Amino acid sequence: MASQDPRIATISSAIRVIPDFPKPGIMFQDITTLLLDPKAFKDTIDLFVERYRDQNISVVAGVEARGFIFGPPIALAIGAKFVPMRKPKKLPGPVISEEYSLEYGTDKIEMHVGAVQAGERALIIDDLIATGGTLSAAIRLLERVEVQVVECACVVELPELKGRERLGDKALFVLVNGS
Amino acid sequence: MASQDPRIATISSAIRVIPDFPKPGIMFQDITTLLLDPKAFKDTIDLFVERYRDQNISVVAGVEARGFIFGPPIALAIGAKFVPMRKPKKLPGPVISEEYSLEYGTDKIEMHVGAVQAGERALIIDDLIATGGTLSAAIRLLERVEVQVVECACVVELPELKGRERLGDKALFVLVNGS
Repeated sequence: MASQDPRIATISSAIRVIPDFPKPGIMFQDITTLLLDPKAFKDTIDLFVERYRDQNISVVAGVEARGFIFGPPIALAIGAKFVPMRKPKKLPGPVISEEYSLEYGTDKIEMHVGAVQAGERALIIDDLIATGGTLSAAIRLLERVEVQVVECACVVELPELKGRERLGDKALFVLVNGS
Repeated sequence: MASQDPRIATISSAIRVIPDFPKPGIMFQDITTLLLDPKAFKDTIDLFVERYRDQNISVVAGVEARGFIFGPPIALAIGAKFVPMRKPKKLPGPVISEEYSLEYGTDKIEMHVGAVQAGERALIIDDLIATGGTLSAAIRLLERVEVQVVECACVVELPELKGRERLGDKALFVLVNGS
């Protein structure tokens, strides 16, 4: 966590916590209130851009749906392409897909064939890391086509769920710890 | 259509057309290929920002899921808040919702209560206007809470589907005509 930066406190306080959503016992970290504060939203994007702009990254991959909110402004600022990773049957062209496990059952994310080229360097963005299932599937999707995943970046981490461990040797950068 | 601008041709040619998706007879306008071209994606955002930056807009509302890709960079550039309009049961806080009709049946979009204030000026963003059902529901959501909808903006319009007529007296700005 980049907790030294004075912008982090503003970002953290702009995130609303909603108890018992989507089910009892879960403290949902609602980033939509962060988006309502133009200064805090800009600070969030700036912190990522400052970290990644000189890392020769040509791919920013964003996970549906909230990764679509944070990924494109970063991609535009660092001159990278934006690659959406979507739920099944949403992408219209040929796809490759990866499964990941949920509490009960499995889900899948998909990426367009041809969206990335072997040898490119990628950043994966989502709003939040919980158990790390989606992000680990995103890493596998990119590595299957020989793209180098430089790092995963999220606004919020829920450290108690140990999602970081599921990413293997991939680095994870987060701005805020949720609880 | 802003067809005079030389950037439009590049944007148009970066959009891929996929026949028979999601079902036979539909020529799907795939904006994901536009996102793979950092220059064309930046041009797209710039064209919107140039149009809206001096219009005293404090709300950019984006329709799930592809409106989440185009809305936030515009909101950040003009200093507005970004308000996601989501499919049912995705937003964690109290919501208001509006139904709209599909070819068979109906669907709904939702917005958080308290995301906008009466008297604010809003821009609504989506990637594409087809029949105009979603955008007309988005207009109703904002007008119910006394927000002034300045305009709807899309990357692509399918003029044959006459979605523009469904928006009533609201202005629609698009960059490219699909077919």
